[in-house]
Amino acid sequence: MEYTSEFFGTLVLIILGTGTSCQVFLGSSSEVTALPRGDWSSIGLGWAMAVALGVWASGGHINPAVTIALATWRDFPWRKVPGYIAAQLFGGFVGAAIIYGTYSHAINIVEGGVGIRTLKTAGLFSTFPVPYLSTANAFFSEFLATAMLLFGIMMFTDSKSKTCLPSPAFPVGLFFLVFAISAGLGMQTGFATNPARDLGPRILTAMVGYGDKVFTTRDHYWIWCPIIATICGAQVGTLAYDLFLFKGDEGVIQML
Amino acid sequence: MEYTSEFFGTLVLIILGTGTSCQVFLGSSSEVTALPRGDWSSIGLGWAMAVALGVWASGGHINPAVTIALATWRDFPWRKVPGYIAAQLFGGFVGAAIIYGTYSHAINIVEGGVGIRTLKTAGLFSTFPVPYLSTANAFFSEFLATAMLLFGIMMFTDSKSKTCLPSPAFPVGLFFLVFAISAGLGMQTGFATNPARDLGPRILTAMVGYGDKVFTTRDHYWIWCPIIATICGAQVGTLAYDLFLFKGDEGVIQML
Amino acid sequence: MEYTSEFFGTLVLIILGTGTSCQVFLGSSSEVTALPRGDWSSIGLGWAMAVALGVWASGGHINPAVTIALATWRDFPWRKVPGYIAAQLFGGFVGAAIIYGTYSHAINIVEGGVGIRTLKTAGLFSTFPVPYLSTANAFFSEFLATAMLLFGIMMFTDSKSKTCLPSPAFPVGLFFLVFAISAGLGMQTGFATNPARDLGPRILTAMVGYGDKVFTTRDHYWIWCPIIATICGAQVGTLAYDLFLFKGDEGVIQML
Amino acid sequence: MEYTSEFFGTLVLIILGTGTSCQVFLGSSSEVTALPRGDWSSIGLGWAMAVALGVWASGGHINPAVTIALATWRDFPWRKVPGYIAAQLFGGFVGAAIIYGTYSHAINIVEGGVGIRTLKTAGLFSTFPVPYLSTANAFFSEFLATAMLLFGIMMFTDSKSKTCLPSPAFPVGLFFLVFAISAGLGMQTGFATNPARDLGPRILTAMVGYGDKVFTTRDHYWIWCPIIATICGAQVGTLAYDLFLFKGDEGVIQML
Repeated sequence: MEYTSEFFGTLVLIILGTGTSCQVFLGSSSEVTALPRGDWSSIGLGWAMAVALGVWASGGHINPAVTIALATWRDFPWRKVPGYIAAQLFGGFVGAAIIYGTYSHAINIVEGGVGIRTLKTAGLFSTFPVPYLSTANAFFSEFLATAMLLFGIMMFTDSKSKTCLPSPAFPVGLFFLVFAISAGLGMQTGFATNPARDLGPRILTAMVGYGDKVFTTRDHYWIWCPIIATICGAQVGTLAYDLFLFKGDEGVIQML
Repeated sequence: MEYTSEFFGTLVLIILGTGTSCQVFLGSSSEVTALPRGDWSSIGLGWAMAVALGVWASGGHINPAVTIALATWRDFPWRKVPGYIAAQLFGGFVGAAIIYGTYSHAINIVEGGVGIRTLKTAGLFSTFPVPYLSTANAFFSEFLATAMLLFGIMMFTDSKSKTCLPSPAFPVGLFFLVFAISAGLGMQTGFATNPARDLGPRILTAMVGYGDKVFTTRDHYWIWCPIIATICGAQVGTLAYDLFLFKGDEGVIQML
Repeated sequence: MEYTSEFFGTLVLIILGTGTSCQVFLGSSSEVTALPRGDWSSIGLGWAMAVALGVWASGGHINPAVTIALATWRDFPWRKVPGYIAAQLFGGFVGAAIIYGTYSHAINIVEGGVGIRTLKTAGLFSTFPVPYLSTANAFFSEFLATAMLLFGIMMFTDSKSKTCLPSPAFPVGLFFLVFAISAGLGMQTGFATNPARDLGPRILTAMVGYGDKVFTTRDHYWIWCPIIATICGAQVGTLAYDLFLFKGDEGVIQML
Repeated sequence: MEYTSEFFGTLVLIILGTGTSCQVFLGSSSEVTALPRGDWSSIGLGWAMAVALGVWASGGHINPAVTIALATWRDFPWRKVPGYIAAQLFGGFVGAAIIYGTYSHAINIVEGGVGIRTLKTAGLFSTFPVPYLSTANAFFSEFLATAMLLFGIMMFTDSKSKTCLPSPAFPVGLFFLVFAISAGLGMQTGFATNPARDLGPRILTAMVGYGDKVFTTRDHYWIWCPIIATICGAQVGTLAYDLFLFKGDEGVIQML
């Protein structure tokens, strides 16, 4: 049941989130639609609401970096971690497949043909950094964004703190947090902040015609930033909160 | 009383929602006003708030696809379904009439004359797909959008789930949901997601001078996507939630 | 005390609301600032938050149309009406004076000189319709916007309805309502929906150099639309709610 | 513990807030990224959410003007004021350093070289007025913005008023307030409204290569507006609320 929740929560996240990326980017092409269908604020709002709705749907983590951090620093059991991560990745993969099907015609138009798939539209599904950024810079940017995310999640769920949010309001706080991260730390790397949000759709793109390049580009960027940096950032964000601000009983707070 | 509520809820929805579409599209014409009066985000925010306010006003469904899904999968009585749908359609029709009156002068300017009414402005009242989209694609896009809507509604109203929203907060959750759908799944078909929101205003446009073409265009698009796809999507979205995540007692949860 | 609250509530409303209008319009001039400082969505969000904050500050009406409607259809005492309206108008006047002082230098730049004051910037303080609109159309547009506002207020404060909002959340509902009205019914007249929001600042502009023309333009527009239409709209919006949806005890519900 | 909270709250505020300023401004350069990454609304939303999240994180003041006002007009002990302010300034400094590191490459691109640092990008970290504004005007604009901020904070935390917000909802009210201030009173000075938000990052910029000019420009602007005007505005805003609207027991209300 929990695994099913993780699957559906991540599915909701990816359908609405990558859907927003597709709509804003593809809709900015005059060959697709006469009027632009959003801007960067739409992307921030869309992803932030997608995260909130995914968490409402699942009542869970929908993010391997969160799952691992909660297993490390809270009492979430390690034996559930592999199942959680598998469900999240599978949700991300299926969500990306649904959105790819929905927008494939518009992708054809923007790419210039049915068989053409380049990194230009691969970036609608998984994250790639802006060209000028070194991988070390990108690592730090992802690390920082995910640390802020986990710091915020810990603060919203610290049950003995006066600013702990009640369960139904937690996703609203998360909406604020994700929007602020998208607005302040999203430009350079596309704020993956979630390995499943990035890897699930990336596998899908590799399979439907984008090929190996989604993995090999920039010296295997995909593993350093959207995966390792987010997992490390989540650890440090949680640790920072716990060391300095945590008010709960040690190691017994479960998310939600 | 319930039928009156459905009427007024849908009326509020359509006045504020199609009002937003009119303002953004008509206001983008430099002959109408010097400054643009909104963009796609305005449309998403305006419609999402219109849905929230319509549901606050009525405490009801304001959507035949929702009514039919609740009759199928919850204990909403089938004998009330025809009256609900009639009230919703009538609310949509009257709301569109009020907005048509409010903006008819600006429509004249954009259309280029009093007697000219084309699909260009018909799309302010009911939904039409982007040109490149096949009807099958459009069907899937509407199906998916409505499935997400109902999945979300079921999750917000699942009274035994920890993320069930209290009644006065339910429209706020709905605002998130509708905005995210508009941002991620709205580009291609205009996200009808509600047969009454589409058919009521469509009948009005047919009567005030747009003529048969609002029904006949694209091989009777109006019946396949904004009606059949939304009703089917609502069924599947509800079913998916019930099969995998539903925590309530079977068949006894009523919306709100 | 109540009169003081009305004064401060309207003061907050006008400082933040007309401040937003000034910032967006004046900031769109490249002589004032290099980057635009907002768009129509900013105006909608700014005014909607200004209304919410004004009502939070006062716990009151901050709108003569609301005051008169509550005296007519609820048990708000008529003897307090003149004092309420006077306090609201005075708050609007003082708020406009503060914002005029804040932005007078930028107004000089946009108008082209210290002594030049035209309707171009008078519209930052009080409402004027778009040029093509007949006064009858403008009347209807204001009437409809204010009817929607009061319909919504009655629905949020109907204490026996399941969607009645608790006191601290009422301004949030109002924020949704005012934003949706700005998005869907704001283009043609600037959605005064409040005689004090319009007349207080209008008197200020007449005194600081805009002269009689703010009153005489378009055959005394100021009295027909921002005052008479809003008061009539408020009556009809309240009446519609009471006739068809009101669940409270008759005539005994007080706002907030 | 309280000092640590102030440090982390201000750190969160500055990371997300100045991060937003950097992303919007730097991302608007076509050399940095192909698509703009936000507009003035992003800045308003980003800073308003940053303030809300900073206050959620700390449950505290994160603003010396607030701290001093609460010591003057409420029972916050004066002996804690220096420690609070030091923690806030240090949080602002560290937050700015983190964001400077994150975006230094993009700053190099916009400035035109590694060693070049001008006021053009110094304004991403601390506030500078628009060129036409006199210092007296700027003083008044900051004074007014901070007075509105404190007036609002006092109203949200007035425990005997019916519109007092419960602790977990207080940051949401603050979000409304800060966004409205950014929309209506932010254009001319950049709405510091917080000495630590301005001085902490300003010291950082002086140290990393911008030099003395961040302090000496416009006759020591930095001390008059972002510091003295905000502190005075906070005093007057609090006083206005207390004189006319305060419902609590005198001098015993603590923020949150």
